[in-house]
Amino acid sequence: MDEIPQGASPKPASASRLETTQVVMPSDANVLGSAFGGKVMEWTDLAAALAAQRHARMPVVTASIDQLSFLAPIRVGQVVVLHAQVNAVFGSSMEVGVEVLAEEPITGERRKCCDAFLTFVALGRDGRPARAPPLLAETADEQRREREARARRQARLASRTRKSR
Amino acid sequence: MDEIPQGASPKPASASRLETTQVVMPSDANVLGSAFGGKVMEWTDLAAALAAQRHARMPVVTASIDQLSFLAPIRVGQVVVLHAQVNAVFGSSMEVGVEVLAEEPITGERRKCCDAFLTFVALGRDGRPARAPPLLAETADEQRREREARARRQARLASRTRKSR
Amino acid sequence: MDEIPQGASPKPASASRLETTQVVMPSDANVLGSAFGGKVMEWTDLAAALAAQRHARMPVVTASIDQLSFLAPIRVGQVVVLHAQVNAVFGSSMEVGVEVLAEEPITGERRKCCDAFLTFVALGRDGRPARAPPLLAETADEQRREREARARRQARLASRTRKSR
Amino acid sequence: MDEIPQGASPKPASASRLETTQVVMPSDANVLGSAFGGKVMEWTDLAAALAAQRHARMPVVTASIDQLSFLAPIRVGQVVVLHAQVNAVFGSSMEVGVEVLAEEPITGERRKCCDAFLTFVALGRDGRPARAPPLLAETADEQRREREARARRQARLASRTRKSR
Amino acid sequence: MDEIPQGASPKPASASRLETTQVVMPSDANVLGSAFGGKVMEWTDLAAALAAQRHARMPVVTASIDQLSFLAPIRVGQVVVLHAQVNAVFGSSMEVGVEVLAEEPITGERRKCCDAFLTFVALGRDGRPARAPPLLAETADEQRREREARARRQARLASRTRKSR
Amino acid sequence: MDEIPQGASPKPASASRLETTQVVMPSDANVLGSAFGGKVMEWTDLAAALAAQRHARMPVVTASIDQLSFLAPIRVGQVVVLHAQVNAVFGSSMEVGVEVLAEEPITGERRKCCDAFLTFVALGRDGRPARAPPLLAETADEQRREREARARRQARLASRTRKSR
Repeated sequence: MDEIPQGASPKPASASRLETTQVVMPSDANVLGSAFGGKVMEWTDLAAALAAQRHARMPVVTASIDQLSFLAPIRVGQVVVLHAQVNAVFGSSMEVGVEVLAEEPITGERRKCCDAFLTFVALGRDGRPARAPPLLAETADEQRREREARARRQARLASRTRKSR
Repeated sequence: MDEIPQGASPKPASASRLETTQVVMPSDANVLGSAFGGKVMEWTDLAAALAAQRHARMPVVTASIDQLSFLAPIRVGQVVVLHAQVNAVFGSSMEVGVEVLAEEPITGERRKCCDAFLTFVALGRDGRPARAPPLLAETADEQRREREARARRQARLASRTRKSR
Repeated sequence: MDEIPQGASPKPASASRLETTQVVMPSDANVLGSAFGGKVMEWTDLAAALAAQRHARMPVVTASIDQLSFLAPIRVGQVVVLHAQVNAVFGSSMEVGVEVLAEEPITGERRKCCDAFLTFVALGRDGRPARAPPLLAETADEQRREREARARRQARLASRTRKSR
Repeated sequence: MDEIPQGASPKPASASRLETTQVVMPSDANVLGSAFGGKVMEWTDLAAALAAQRHARMPVVTASIDQLSFLAPIRVGQVVVLHAQVNAVFGSSMEVGVEVLAEEPITGERRKCCDAFLTFVALGRDGRPARAPPLLAETADEQRREREARARRQARLASRTRKSR
Repeated sequence: MDEIPQGASPKPASASRLETTQVVMPSDANVLGSAFGGKVMEWTDLAAALAAQRHARMPVVTASIDQLSFLAPIRVGQVVVLHAQVNAVFGSSMEVGVEVLAEEPITGERRKCCDAFLTFVALGRDGRPARAPPLLAETADEQRREREARARRQARLASRTRKSR
Repeated sequence: MDEIPQGASPKPASASRLETTQVVMPSDANVLGSAFGGKVMEWTDLAAALAAQRHARMPVVTASIDQLSFLAPIRVGQVVVLHAQVNAVFGSSMEVGVEVLAEEPITGERRKCCDAFLTFVALGRDGRPARAPPLLAETADEQRREREARARRQARLASRTRKSR
């Protein structure tokens, strides 16, 4: 946990921000003709890992999906647009938020289909958890995201304490 | 929401229980040589969907991953054993618990690598949410699972209420 | 062929028994809309390899498919349930029987769609064939399986002798 | 079974002959670094289906793998060359022989790695088995193949009769 | 070719611009350990199709790859960043330029690995080629791209005339 | 560039010639129900690489697609037949021509759907470009192919000179 010196300068949240796209092909479909949930999870995990890696500039591994909600089905032929960014840093852990939009290719209309929060852990050269750079939440939106990530983390820690008693 | 009459007889939790296996092939690997997280999520989603479908005997869709934690990396060549079962039913929603074990093929040694809770929604013939059969939690373990699922659901609902205020 | 001492204690056939499941996705379909035969063969090979590995607790390779019959087509959306178990052991070779059922997800109705016999070879630490533990056929069904496997093997050996004359 | 008139003129075995190639990519590998058996089965089934379809000029489905032997492992990077041809026709059934060679890309050296016999069934416009054109075995090799296919078929039928008694 | 009225207002080139990312997984590798060329072509085609579709807001099909050059190998574990934009419109045809960069995940260093020009055709509701909106090249860079696309097209047409004489 | 001595004896163009086949499965389809362009590019690249490798008997990498035209859509269920052969050799570079036909499986009717020219580079034992054997164009058709490849190469070099001025 000493990879990065205590006084490492923080990096702006916006530097981790990422937009990526996938086209839903027939081979990504489930039996009901919409994008298979497991495929959307895979795309979400990859986009989130990229955002965490851009912030940490270290290898990262997925520690957990803290929440992932499907809001609407995504149809074959639609374009999936994923937005990911680091919300908060806790030592070697980073919470990444992902928003998944489905874009109707002809009209360009977009609809939010999924949102998710995942936690990644930065790894040092020895393959063990290593401190990630602190996050600089600059805008009001970034500060709200960091505040909410902190609340989610406290809720998780509290729930674990209850369990282990 | 009236697909199943109010008095539908409950089904035992054990009837939804499922064990399935996957072999981690080189094409499932991430850059670090262990099973790619997105792949494990896909297997988890499929196993959980099967358990929900066995309980409801209706088509189901993933509504959310409420929590999925990676506890240890899974290596290429290991056998992934997934256990899934319905923990609780809330109208048309079902919480499914999944436990993912990695089995060392030579020694047969197993290690818990991932656990997850997912929520599925049962769909009626019109493609809209439909009441799933009530769950009969018979053993002490099944009753604990149902109680904890109920607590998780209340925590989620409370968190949404806070947000929407 | 001396990896395991002559007197190695036999292992019960039931210890190799395995049930696994696959969901037939649209990407597994052939042009006629049912599961592509090559995909069913792949699943059959994997399930059989797992059963052989559980018995031998050594790495195994497929030596041959001795017979694989398609009895009924499997439709997209059905759940494929595979049962595999070691039928007989001949030195380093093991015959594994696989039964493939298609389960209608809504009714739970199951129908036998395919059955197969495959031979696997156990490999020692040097990557060469090594003696697998003897098999203990305990039940009447297990003893019938072993007897039939022995007959199939003798028929194959006889046919090879005829060819090489 | 009356799709093709009794007097349909036979087609030469050579017209069904087929050579196709696959490159073994890292994503086709098993844990031991050679081509995954299930993948080789898939390629074999596809090549055989093409040969049967070329002979019948009707849709075909795999009825069985009558025998498939792995003679040597195939390494990643090697080129797999598959030869398939119809050996014999029995009403609506066709036995197809497949020979799988691994070609060393640099030296061009080829080695037989697998051979297989599969049975396909021709389907009429109603999706039911339909008579395939008779086969004209012209060369000594083609006549030997037809004779051996006939012997294998008789052995299979005899074995089924024994079972059902 | 009359889907869009003669006087349809032109759309800025910048509106078609697109950045997307892919992670090179072990399953995308060729035998030499870098990204398989066919995979990079697939990603390039998809990114270019998205840019063409964003401009036309009609379904599009790939008509040709006019040129695609590999400048440097892309390693497993690197992040592939693709930039695509419409360079010029010729009736129902659109030339799209794609630039493929490989990003070193730890240092963030990027290197151009591939560039390509592809032509897409916009399709009307009847599935036949339909006029795409004219392109508004606003910046000096966009005007240079349009000029060069025009020169490439003239060279192609001239080469075809020579051939057909 | 000195891997092969100056006086290496030329190899006939016909020795590089290759026919291979692919079946278009539902998982290869695009949203319009025909073979996804990126998939056809992948098959084209693999077939061309094999032809180049057969000529050079050295590892090869794709340097560029010089032109690839889609002439007609390929439908799911059709058989794709690819013909590839080396057209010309320029030091360590080889131009390979590929013709892609779609075969209607029932009638056997074939239609040209795509043609392409790709350039490959032969690699020596040190992983750097190495001289490929000269090509012996024996027939009138092979001589025309070599002449046209030479013209295409000169056009490309001329275009690059114009650019770099």
